[in-house]
Amino acid sequence: MIIVLSLLIIRIGRGLIAQFFANKRRGPFQITQRREATLNKLVVNALSYVVYFVAFIMILETLTINIAALLAGAGVAGLAIGFGAQNLVRDVISGFFIIFEDQFSVGDYIQTSGVEGFVEEVGLRTCKVKAWTGEVHILPNGNVTQVTNYSMHNSVAVVDVKVAYEEDIERAEQVISKLLEELPERYEEIITMPELLGVQNLGASEVVMRVIAEVNPMEHWAVARVIRKEVKNRLNQEGIEIPFPRMVMYSRHDENENEAVDQ
Amino acid sequence: MIIVLSLLIIRIGRGLIAQFFANKRRGPFQITQRREATLNKLVVNALSYVVYFVAFIMILETLTINIAALLAGAGVAGLAIGFGAQNLVRDVISGFFIIFEDQFSVGDYIQTSGVEGFVEEVGLRTCKVKAWTGEVHILPNGNVTQVTNYSMHNSVAVVDVKVAYEEDIERAEQVISKLLEELPERYEEIITMPELLGVQNLGASEVVMRVIAEVNPMEHWAVARVIRKEVKNRLNQEGIEIPFPRMVMYSRHDENENEAVDQ
Amino acid sequence: MIIVLSLLIIRIGRGLIAQFFANKRRGPFQITQRREATLNKLVVNALSYVVYFVAFIMILETLTINIAALLAGAGVAGLAIGFGAQNLVRDVISGFFIIFEDQFSVGDYIQTSGVEGFVEEVGLRTCKVKAWTGEVHILPNGNVTQVTNYSMHNSVAVVDVKVAYEEDIERAEQVISKLLEELPERYEEIITMPELLGVQNLGASEVVMRVIAEVNPMEHWAVARVIRKEVKNRLNQEGIEIPFPRMVMYSRHDENENEAVDQ
Amino acid sequence: MIIVLSLLIIRIGRGLIAQFFANKRRGPFQITQRREATLNKLVVNALSYVVYFVAFIMILETLTINIAALLAGAGVAGLAIGFGAQNLVRDVISGFFIIFEDQFSVGDYIQTSGVEGFVEEVGLRTCKVKAWTGEVHILPNGNVTQVTNYSMHNSVAVVDVKVAYEEDIERAEQVISKLLEELPERYEEIITMPELLGVQNLGASEVVMRVIAEVNPMEHWAVARVIRKEVKNRLNQEGIEIPFPRMVMYSRHDENENEAVDQ
Amino acid sequence: MIIVLSLLIIRIGRGLIAQFFANKRRGPFQITQRREATLNKLVVNALSYVVYFVAFIMILETLTINIAALLAGAGVAGLAIGFGAQNLVRDVISGFFIIFEDQFSVGDYIQTSGVEGFVEEVGLRTCKVKAWTGEVHILPNGNVTQVTNYSMHNSVAVVDVKVAYEEDIERAEQVISKLLEELPERYEEIITMPELLGVQNLGASEVVMRVIAEVNPMEHWAVARVIRKEVKNRLNQEGIEIPFPRMVMYSRHDENENEAVDQ
Amino acid sequence: MIIVLSLLIIRIGRGLIAQFFANKRRGPFQITQRREATLNKLVVNALSYVVYFVAFIMILETLTINIAALLAGAGVAGLAIGFGAQNLVRDVISGFFIIFEDQFSVGDYIQTSGVEGFVEEVGLRTCKVKAWTGEVHILPNGNVTQVTNYSMHNSVAVVDVKVAYEEDIERAEQVISKLLEELPERYEEIITMPELLGVQNLGASEVVMRVIAEVNPMEHWAVARVIRKEVKNRLNQEGIEIPFPRMVMYSRHDENENEAVDQ
Amino acid sequence: MIIVLSLLIIRIGRGLIAQFFANKRRGPFQITQRREATLNKLVVNALSYVVYFVAFIMILETLTINIAALLAGAGVAGLAIGFGAQNLVRDVISGFFIIFEDQFSVGDYIQTSGVEGFVEEVGLRTCKVKAWTGEVHILPNGNVTQVTNYSMHNSVAVVDVKVAYEEDIERAEQVISKLLEELPERYEEIITMPELLGVQNLGASEVVMRVIAEVNPMEHWAVARVIRKEVKNRLNQEGIEIPFPRMVMYSRHDENENEAVDQ
Repeated sequence: MIIVLSLLIIRIGRGLIAQFFANKRRGPFQITQRREATLNKLVVNALSYVVYFVAFIMILETLTINIAALLAGAGVAGLAIGFGAQNLVRDVISGFFIIFEDQFSVGDYIQTSGVEGFVEEVGLRTCKVKAWTGEVHILPNGNVTQVTNYSMHNSVAVVDVKVAYEEDIERAEQVISKLLEELPERYEEIITMPELLGVQNLGASEVVMRVIAEVNPMEHWAVARVIRKEVKNRLNQEGIEIPFPRMVMYSRHDENENEAVDQ
Repeated sequence: MIIVLSLLIIRIGRGLIAQFFANKRRGPFQITQRREATLNKLVVNALSYVVYFVAFIMILETLTINIAALLAGAGVAGLAIGFGAQNLVRDVISGFFIIFEDQFSVGDYIQTSGVEGFVEEVGLRTCKVKAWTGEVHILPNGNVTQVTNYSMHNSVAVVDVKVAYEEDIERAEQVISKLLEELPERYEEIITMPELLGVQNLGASEVVMRVIAEVNPMEHWAVARVIRKEVKNRLNQEGIEIPFPRMVMYSRHDENENEAVDQ
Repeated sequence: MIIVLSLLIIRIGRGLIAQFFANKRRGPFQITQRREATLNKLVVNALSYVVYFVAFIMILETLTINIAALLAGAGVAGLAIGFGAQNLVRDVISGFFIIFEDQFSVGDYIQTSGVEGFVEEVGLRTCKVKAWTGEVHILPNGNVTQVTNYSMHNSVAVVDVKVAYEEDIERAEQVISKLLEELPERYEEIITMPELLGVQNLGASEVVMRVIAEVNPMEHWAVARVIRKEVKNRLNQEGIEIPFPRMVMYSRHDENENEAVDQ
Repeated sequence: MIIVLSLLIIRIGRGLIAQFFANKRRGPFQITQRREATLNKLVVNALSYVVYFVAFIMILETLTINIAALLAGAGVAGLAIGFGAQNLVRDVISGFFIIFEDQFSVGDYIQTSGVEGFVEEVGLRTCKVKAWTGEVHILPNGNVTQVTNYSMHNSVAVVDVKVAYEEDIERAEQVISKLLEELPERYEEIITMPELLGVQNLGASEVVMRVIAEVNPMEHWAVARVIRKEVKNRLNQEGIEIPFPRMVMYSRHDENENEAVDQ
Repeated sequence: MIIVLSLLIIRIGRGLIAQFFANKRRGPFQITQRREATLNKLVVNALSYVVYFVAFIMILETLTINIAALLAGAGVAGLAIGFGAQNLVRDVISGFFIIFEDQFSVGDYIQTSGVEGFVEEVGLRTCKVKAWTGEVHILPNGNVTQVTNYSMHNSVAVVDVKVAYEEDIERAEQVISKLLEELPERYEEIITMPELLGVQNLGASEVVMRVIAEVNPMEHWAVARVIRKEVKNRLNQEGIEIPFPRMVMYSRHDENENEAVDQ
Repeated sequence: MIIVLSLLIIRIGRGLIAQFFANKRRGPFQITQRREATLNKLVVNALSYVVYFVAFIMILETLTINIAALLAGAGVAGLAIGFGAQNLVRDVISGFFIIFEDQFSVGDYIQTSGVEGFVEEVGLRTCKVKAWTGEVHILPNGNVTQVTNYSMHNSVAVVDVKVAYEEDIERAEQVISKLLEELPERYEEIITMPELLGVQNLGASEVVMRVIAEVNPMEHWAVARVIRKEVKNRLNQEGIEIPFPRMVMYSRHDENENEAVDQ
Repeated sequence: MIIVLSLLIIRIGRGLIAQFFANKRRGPFQITQRREATLNKLVVNALSYVVYFVAFIMILETLTINIAALLAGAGVAGLAIGFGAQNLVRDVISGFFIIFEDQFSVGDYIQTSGVEGFVEEVGLRTCKVKAWTGEVHILPNGNVTQVTNYSMHNSVAVVDVKVAYEEDIERAEQVISKLLEELPERYEEIITMPELLGVQNLGASEVVMRVIAEVNPMEHWAVARVIRKEVKNRLNQEGIEIPFPRMVMYSRHDENENEAVDQ
């Protein structure tokens, strides 16, 4: 009956949408590739919601249930439904603005509402984010109030290097700076010259020096690993000590040892 | 009376539903096995709610209590009931979307609202999640706003290996990489070649190297245990030190020991 | 007057309820023993609420206070009462679903809303949970949104065993596995063979191995204590070291000791 | 005028209430002593609220302010007052249920809403809880959603005893068990035989064994102190070591000491 | 104009209030001194609110703005104002109950809503609390839901004394008890005999014994300092050791020191 | 057009306000200097809001948009606007009470809602607080529910001094007290004699003694630095030890060192 | 159709806006450069919202959907939409005040709602903040309740220097002060003389001295790095020790070593 029809419409709709996006690529409206994947998934998603909704209304009407009265019905039931449904409305409004303002697209790496990962799908009501360890986070759009998008600009790899207090800071700076100049040639993912910022911290046992490098979006983890290894090797070669935790110990003879005496 | 009738209807309904799902398997509509278990439980669950609800209304009518007036009744009581019942409505709406959007099915391993485990049942109002230590978490669907589903994609086993600062990082990398190449042959649950990412951290006493391996959903715990054991054994064989916490100690003679002197 | 009558009705009601449950056991409707205790307490609880409520209304009517007007009264007072009373309605609705969905029964061990213990009573508005140290937690049912029930399935006892890095992991695994095979014979509360999962963690000073055992609900604490003792004794017998925290110490002579020099 | 009259009524009321409770003790209605103190304070408290409220209304009427209009007044002011007053209504409803359900009485030791102590007074709107260090916590009843009552059942004293890894666990268990058997004779507040549960934890430096003892409500602190002292003394006598934190130290000669070398 | 008049009325009002409270002391109504300071400040505070409010209304009327319409105005503006003003109403209601129920008075030491100090002023809408370090906390009364009042009952000074594991607990108890008996004579602020509760904790390196002393409200800090000093001196005299943190160290020769070997 | 006119009015208004405050100083109404700065900024701030608001309304009317209908419009849009605007109303009401109750003025050092600093400006809707490190916190007044004002009373500088357990507490107290008596002469910012409270804590390795000094508002940081330096120097001169962390170490020979033995 | 027209209008609008801002610079209204960038982006942003909104309404009207009825529709749907849309209204109101009150402009470094970075864009509904590590935070303006703006005033670089307890504090102060006087000459980003505040803390092993320097907005990180390096070098030259963590160790012979004895 109605259900079968709906399924048919959805199947046909998908085909048309795919075709439309195929045409669009040749058409006058340039949409970035990035948004296209997002819109394609979204339109399919929206289509199925609309078709199912219409089907649902039609079934209800077939069963001669008065929808208008139901929706406008005041009183206890209406109050309860109205409050209960506000989350649904909030989710759809939020979803609309995510697309409209291009907050993120399918494939971006984002962090929002305590989860982090690559966007798999942006729907009308929910979006799906896939973490790098494989699990999929499914969030209602209303939870996505505040988004951090890592794929819009270049990332920055940050490496903190520890050097012993005994070392000459000037010399350590020269050694590290010389290494950093060599890196862009040897590793193509380091697109700009990494920079040695200086003494970030005077720690309990070590002087902390900070190195940063601007890289393509989301390459900062890999680049930071490379820099860490290279700096460690170079400091070893140059004989600059990377310190272990240190402690100065004053030994006192406990003259009261075998007697019960006060301290 | 009405109650007995309701119980009868539910019993018959269960039979029909089971039969329906049995037929469906042979029918034209392909539902994945995964969704079938979910839907079967859900339809039974929904049936009992509907039957009991109708029975409840009929009993009230028998007692000549005017339900329409009750539901539409404004004033204090209506207000209180309306607010109190909004959670109920929210739960049912959420439950509907969990099924409709296929957020998770019976048997999936999910994390939501602070609990973690395998889904046992998805009902109209609540769902049940069984933790691996045996306890059952019962959640109203309205609490399931944000779901993490571990059963949709492959998982990733992550193992951090500690190597002493004195060791040659290049050699450690070669030893570990060689081991990782051998693993897929010896353990069939490791379906792809594990990967050595590099120097994840320069810790206080050790260089931390990260190994990852993509595995079937939820096998990452077992695989990580295997990799941990193998890497530990191989490093031992190759004489590469896994370091204990270290400290450099400067001993000073406390010349002021037995005198009251300032420090 | 009315109060005395109410007390009488409640006393008679309790007798009838007790008799009814006694009959029920012989009757055609099989209720599990577990639910029976819950329902018995609940019906008594509900009876007293209803009787007192009717008595309260009758007293008010005696005092010729118009209740209908009071309840339906809009305006400031109505608003305040309506909002204030919503918690009450929420509690009763929640309580109804706890019983109807059989989330837990009297005697179950549950965790909910930050408290943990055995259920003592499930009422219309509140339930009582008794902790193992003796205190009673009294919760309004509206707080019981998310329940963890430990009494539905078997529990799992988890024991983490620490073994020194110097030990041969293979040998330690064999020794522990052999012990675990002997345990079900010697302790009848261990109903299934405990399992050695493998290397759970490579800690700072020790290799952590995990042992799990499936046991009857809520017996996991006692069984874990037994396994802990047995494993500790067996490792001692076999000469496998359970390590203390370790540290590698590099002593340096502080050549600057009695001079004011830079480090 | 009205105020003076109110004060008179309250004073007379107190006398009547005291007399009523004195009679009640001889009357047919058995109220437990525990509830009597609570009800006495409550009725006095409620009386003064009611009298002051009536006086307040009368004064307003004297001043020809139309109360009905004020209370029923819609619009901005009504809205603000209605929302502002909902806490008041919530407090009174909660207070009513605390008494009606006998959640706690004057003199009980309870924990609720982050405070802990003996109940001093349960009023219509607030209750007072006195901590053992002397300060009084005053809570609106609406904050008392979830109560932990320590005075309903016996308490359990829990003592964790640390024993060195070198000791024989069997022997330590025998020594402690033998001591526990002697305790009920020597201390009358220990009403049941304390029980040695077994190995609660395999700590970093010690084996932790747990002793529990069921005692009268709120005596668990005193009993735990006694058991702690007795167990410590007995273990000393028997030569079973209570361990200090331990550490295994590997000393390495730092051959690079006076040279700037890599580690 | 109106403003000048208001200022005059307030000034005259203050005089009358001061005179009234002066008379009251000779009058028949006994108010405790403690409440008098509170009421005095409060009445002045309330007076200025009322006068300014009336003046504000009169100015508006002068400007021919229709207040009644404004206050009763429904629609968007009314809704916004109604919600925005609910905090104001809540504060005044809370303030009324703080006075009416005598939760605290000017001069009491209280803790509420994260701040702690002596009450400086209780107004209709806010109260002021002065911390012992000089800063003044200004809280709307609506934030004062839960109050801890330190000035209603005697305080308890709690001192935890650490004694070495090697010491004889019985002897330490005797020494401390003997000291405590001497204290009330030597320090007049110690009004009752301090009490030695017993072994509060078996710590990592020390046996903790607890001493408590009931003192006048808010004197517990000073008394605790005195007891701490006296107990420390006495234990020194008696040769009972107050232990430093302890550690048992197992030195192992690291035979693999200069070779790259496995651990 | 209207905008230009508004800007003119605001400019003229500022001049008039400045002149008014200049006159006021000579006038009969004494406002403290502290409030004057606050009021001056506030009136300018309020003026611009009012002028812009009127201009906005006039522009809308020019565009023949019916404002009254818009503001009173019920239905969906009205509901949304009403709820959305409640924060605005709340902010203005809060701001009014901050000024009216003189909670803080421009120049005061306050702490509120997680930020801390000197008040730069108090406006109708927001206030600005400048931290000592230069950043400006801009808070809506509705967030300023609870304020801590450091500029109303004298501050108290608190210095905790550590003394070794071996030292004689009496002597240390005498030495410190003698120093404190000398301080007010040598440092003019110390306006009252600092006070030695006594033994604040018996720490793990040291006896902590507390010194406090009442100083002018916000001078406590500077004074505490001075007292710290002076006390440290004096204790050094007098040979009273300020202790480093201490530890008692029991060395045990690890007789099982090179054998695989149990511990 | 309508969509194409909208896109055209937006494109033309952007040109006009750019031209307008170009003219403005020559015009009589001086807007600071800082606000100009903000307004330019904002007007473009607002234009597209308005055009799309009008287009959306026109499309709906083309489809003969009655908008007025939709917006004013009461009942269930209206309630749900009204509540769901309140966030949208709140965001726009907040955004308006951010611009109107000049809380921050494009290019400022701000901290708000848990994120920190340079403002990239301020829109009607959201604003974008770019962190220094490259990721972009997208926040609805309604979340921006409380802003910390680092670009309004000069920043303060804070450096804490640790000096050993054995050193003479007076001498350390002189050495550091002398260095600080030299710094403004050698580094031009240090615009004012850095200041040595004094002894900030008497730590466990070191005396902490604080140095502060006022610098241009957001230069405090770079300047703090320079001061840290210079102070460290100077203290080394002058032979003033920067201490490692210290500990006093009392070695006791463990006479009970090989015997099972009590401690």
